[in-house]
Amino acid sequence: MALKKFFNPSSVAIVGASRTKGKVGYEILRSMLDGGFKGGIFPINPKSETIEGLKCYPDLESIGQVPELVIIVVPAKAVPTVMQQCAKIGSRAVVIITAGFKEVGQEGRELENRVIQIARQGHIRVIGPNCLGVIVPGSNLNASFGGEMPAKGTIGYISQSGALMAAILDMANANRIGFSKLVSIGNKADINELDIIKAFAADAETRVIAGYLESIVDGNTFVNQAEQISLRKPILLMKAGVTSAGAKAASSHTGSLAGSEVAYECVFERAGIIRCSSIKQQFDYAQAFANQPLPGGSRVVLITNAGGAGIMAADSVEQHGLSFAKLSEETTAKLAAKLPASANIHNPVDILGDALADRYEFVLDTVLDDEGVDVVLVLLTPQAMTQPTATAEAMVRITHRKPAKTVLACFLGASKIAEAAKILKKGKIPIYDSTEMAVSTIKVMTDYLRWKTRPKRVVKLFAVNRRKVENVIERYLRRGSREIGEEDSKEILEAYGFVTPKGSIATTAEQAANIAQQLGFPVVLKIWSPDILHKSDLGGVKLGLENATAVMDAFDLMMHRIPKQAPNANILGVLVQEMCRGGKEVILGMHRDPHFGPLMMFGMGGIMVEVLKDVAFYLAPLTAEEAKQMLINTRTYKMLKGVRGQESTDIDAIAEGLQRLSQLVTEFPQIQEMDINPYVVGRAGTTAIAVDARISVEQS
Amino acid sequence: MALKKFFNPSSVAIVGASRTKGKVGYEILRSMLDGGFKGGIFPINPKSETIEGLKCYPDLESIGQVPELVIIVVPAKAVPTVMQQCAKIGSRAVVIITAGFKEVGQEGRELENRVIQIARQGHIRVIGPNCLGVIVPGSNLNASFGGEMPAKGTIGYISQSGALMAAILDMANANRIGFSKLVSIGNKADINELDIIKAFAADAETRVIAGYLESIVDGNTFVNQAEQISLRKPILLMKAGVTSAGAKAASSHTGSLAGSEVAYECVFERAGIIRCSSIKQQFDYAQAFANQPLPGGSRVVLITNAGGAGIMAADSVEQHGLSFAKLSEETTAKLAAKLPASANIHNPVDILGDALADRYEFVLDTVLDDEGVDVVLVLLTPQAMTQPTATAEAMVRITHRKPAKTVLACFLGASKIAEAAKILKKGKIPIYDSTEMAVSTIKVMTDYLRWKTRPKRVVKLFAVNRRKVENVIERYLRRGSREIGEEDSKEILEAYGFVTPKGSIATTAEQAANIAQQLGFPVVLKIWSPDILHKSDLGGVKLGLENATAVMDAFDLMMHRIPKQAPNANILGVLVQEMCRGGKEVILGMHRDPHFGPLMMFGMGGIMVEVLKDVAFYLAPLTAEEAKQMLINTRTYKMLKGVRGQESTDIDAIAEGLQRLSQLVTEFPQIQEMDINPYVVGRAGTTAIAVDARISVEQS
Repeated sequence: MALKKFFNPSSVAIVGASRTKGKVGYEILRSMLDGGFKGGIFPINPKSETIEGLKCYPDLESIGQVPELVIIVVPAKAVPTVMQQCAKIGSRAVVIITAGFKEVGQEGRELENRVIQIARQGHIRVIGPNCLGVIVPGSNLNASFGGEMPAKGTIGYISQSGALMAAILDMANANRIGFSKLVSIGNKADINELDIIKAFAADAETRVIAGYLESIVDGNTFVNQAEQISLRKPILLMKAGVTSAGAKAASSHTGSLAGSEVAYECVFERAGIIRCSSIKQQFDYAQAFANQPLPGGSRVVLITNAGGAGIMAADSVEQHGLSFAKLSEETTAKLAAKLPASANIHNPVDILGDALADRYEFVLDTVLDDEGVDVVLVLLTPQAMTQPTATAEAMVRITHRKPAKTVLACFLGASKIAEAAKILKKGKIPIYDSTEMAVSTIKVMTDYLRWKTRPKRVVKLFAVNRRKVENVIERYLRRGSREIGEEDSKEILEAYGFVTPKGSIATTAEQAANIAQQLGFPVVLKIWSPDILHKSDLGGVKLGLENATAVMDAFDLMMHRIPKQAPNANILGVLVQEMCRGGKEVILGMHRDPHFGPLMMFGMGGIMVEVLKDVAFYLAPLTAEEAKQMLINTRTYKMLKGVRGQESTDIDAIAEGLQRLSQLVTEFPQIQEMDINPYVVGRAGTTAIAVDARISVEQS
Repeated sequence: MALKKFFNPSSVAIVGASRTKGKVGYEILRSMLDGGFKGGIFPINPKSETIEGLKCYPDLESIGQVPELVIIVVPAKAVPTVMQQCAKIGSRAVVIITAGFKEVGQEGRELENRVIQIARQGHIRVIGPNCLGVIVPGSNLNASFGGEMPAKGTIGYISQSGALMAAILDMANANRIGFSKLVSIGNKADINELDIIKAFAADAETRVIAGYLESIVDGNTFVNQAEQISLRKPILLMKAGVTSAGAKAASSHTGSLAGSEVAYECVFERAGIIRCSSIKQQFDYAQAFANQPLPGGSRVVLITNAGGAGIMAADSVEQHGLSFAKLSEETTAKLAAKLPASANIHNPVDILGDALADRYEFVLDTVLDDEGVDVVLVLLTPQAMTQPTATAEAMVRITHRKPAKTVLACFLGASKIAEAAKILKKGKIPIYDSTEMAVSTIKVMTDYLRWKTRPKRVVKLFAVNRRKVENVIERYLRRGSREIGEEDSKEILEAYGFVTPKGSIATTAEQAANIAQQLGFPVVLKIWSPDILHKSDLGGVKLGLENATAVMDAFDLMMHRIPKQAPNANILGVLVQEMCRGGKEVILGMHRDPHFGPLMMFGMGGIMVEVLKDVAFYLAPLTAEEAKQMLINTRTYKMLKGVRGQESTDIDAIAEGLQRLSQLVTEFPQIQEMDINPYVVGRAGTTAIAVDARISVEQS
């Protein structure tokens, strides 16, 4: 197990231990003692002889042996000295509880850097500073001032906020939620969220990884590793704080639509991370993952003694897009034989208000045998005849005998079901206080199942001309230009296998008409100048010119007007281009998130993007499945598939375009933002054309 | 107070009282005694002399006085006899607990009808049958077998499910939630949800009306009365059960898009009813309405001792579209003077992890004086130094001194904040266990405020030709036709002030060309036959004919082809119609909900309705504001307003069209479904044209 010295140390020194109740140096020592830690505990404080009956040492060296874990609670300024002592005696694991570092400004940041420098030199790993500490129930280790030792369980918890961890512990203890480990990571000066998540992944005692984060240190590595870990253990995170990092001025569609929230959504989706919005929700989900098998599918059966509760749960099942298990004839026959006539033997199974525990037991037992059932949700309200406690006991009995399927409970009530709740929790059946939460837990489990069993991600690599793109980008960066011009953009697109519209530059009206004649009407005219980026704003684009006269008129008008509006622009001529018609216009885009790299975007052109913001994002690099999924995730997908007998658009061509773009922006981190807009796509078998592109680059 | 005999009777008879524990007849008597009812209690049972020390009577007559309230728990078959006795002695208020009526099928339904017939003749009001009973803490009346008497409070509760009420009571008692009255209405054979809601509206002890409903008896009356009541007291309802009533085969767009869920959404919106999705959520909302003043606006300030909690709450504030109060300079100066330097004196106000109760008190006191603040949400996590209990006491103190503004608490934790939670609840400060729930409560309060202070609803009545429409509809109904033909639809539209396209019927190709010439090209040709409803399916519609030849060709082609495809159709000719162009095509529609009457629909034409289902519904009759709001509620509203410098469409013309349609369908209940599609609207000042309509009628 990684970080073993933090989680299962043979001995712990507390530097800054104190005799004064209420002081952190006292509370941590008290927690260690109350937790029943079996190894050596060495309080360090030059001013005391003993604390709480333990011999107290003036400094680390005088212990005479090397404590495996050192907890530091001395004032911030004294921390470097303690760290030097740790290095000297050879302690390799340190938790710095002390605050007053990076979080208080420049001076603190420098102090923190100094501490980490000493740590690196001394091969010391550090949790903190500015944290609540570490708790490992299985090692009887409560090296924290967060409160009582929680129960031992299988949830590994990581918190970036000490203040929230205090609340989390209090809520967990009241709800009998057990943990394998809890770590407050504070400023993450050395050990960060990913280190802990990896340690939990490798930890045999941890089944579920949960946490509260405000930031992620190394975006790319996090995504890749979290994805691997999610395949083995579910990761449930609260992520707070909509930062403004993604909000920097963006000139492309993709950029303006992608906030940092979008990036996190993409990251969580890619890495299979389950996002939670409150502590309660996180616990509600976590207890199911920790205690129940993953469902084999999404076919839910409801058992209830209250019609109303059944209806409310059924509403939720429908709203969440789960399916109702269709009970087999064998099952319904068995139910019919034993249940009262007015019971409903079909799903939702209503076993009536007078149902005693034995009726619950019989029905649960019976439906668990039905091959058409993946998940059972048992609903109960405490009516006059109801036996909540005996029902809970029966449920535990049955599920221990038949542990293969997911069984959840929703007992509505409080004091009347309190004893039952205890029994269910102890018996590893999660219990919920609303039908909505119970059903949304099932939803989250089936989503995770689907994610986990998706086909292996294979990113196709197209044969491209990488060198060509390199040259173009280098040329721009050398001269300090950020926006790639139209002709060069075309070269980049073609180098990566995109087809661009045919066309040539004309310098006279007659030449323009000739080119148009050769291309075939209608054509498009565009002013051609490296200095004009927003051509249409200046009247520099004319669409749908149907004959030679129209072409010549448009040419002359542009040459007449535009030099007046942009007197300093170097106008090289006018581009005469074939007009792509008959297909649908879509946008393929990319926005590079500062933390997580390229976010790919897809949207239908025109109002669908501009007004409705109907776009889908995904993290690059894209697989073929993901590229297709992006299309499916837009509301306009149906339009691509062809509405009312219209022919379907070439879905594969769009997906391939997205994959090629994904390859381009992955191979060239200099590309900051990029839109191919419009990308014109016809029916299957026709050639999709990248009509226009906007590419901005930066030294990466 | 209406229903006074149910809520504050001077004496209560229990017909079917029993000595046997566990029997309903015993439990109710026990509840009455435990509740401390001060009036006379008369157990009725011919087989007992006394029950629980009370004299027992063989029947109602032998009591010798008239019990104001009679509770019936005898078997279903015996209920009519008891009812006859009630009528005879003059008891006017009866609660029938007994089940086995309408809910068990035809036989039970007949029994129920018999009971109600007796009630009507004897002027008896009935709650139930098949219910849990009535609880009024203020009258020490617990005439139910639902459990312990809850605390006295200001929430009036109504439940259509006895089984859920048991859970509701248990949860309320555990969370110290008080009630003015609780009524289980069961089968609603006589007294229904609206009767109870009206009684609660008139009840001085009730501040908040809450309930769980599965159906609404009289839709129209309910809407109108609930709307009036919501202006005085908030109504919070759980409504379960997506019925299939609205799903009957529908031929119009509007019909196929409107389910019964849509109807309920419209009803709740119109009537200002706050919809809740779980018992917990309902209590969370209700405790705020019951104990705090409505906020004056939506400017929220957050006070926190934990950065993480502050961030999570701020995220919710943003997601819910609430605004962050901007603290005045005076306020921030005061805060700066007293708070530690590293505190954040701007909203969210972070008073740091070491904040004691006095710091909370000072900050709450200060921000309550700021005129820019409408709502204060106080967040707390129990950290080492935190004083949850003293903080709660301080909050209660301050808010009692300054009661004008809304103050909510979100203390995260369990045992460490349990005492504080009690103090807050007692001090009328609602407390939440997640930032999300606290903030969504604020959202619900501000939404209610906005609803309550909206301008008075004034439905404009246009001058129309009602008689003309009457004639058309009568003609169709007489001959048993449901679908109004195109020409007659046009007449109906014109009678209600819609402008329809110009055009005439041609019977020869030359005549068609002539008419087209007069109208001006382009024109539309439509086959003209009372027997062909879906013209375009048969090739009976040709759009955009640009010249006389095209018109003659189209005419001949229709006359050649259509008789072959529809050999029995009586073809009267071809309609030559002006082509409406240049405007936007929208759909105005109506679907008559079986319970709530006409639901108006608005949507942009084409894919926006067909693919994206981007439509808005509202209950008729519409005010001008509501008609406009329907437009605003669609995602495509921006397109109407004009995207990228396009001119705005004539919003008022659409709103007027919706109001005229609303008047038409309100005045003619025979109209079951109706679409005006397309309704072509240009820029402001141009004339909107109702190009086509589909109207279906039925004997109402």
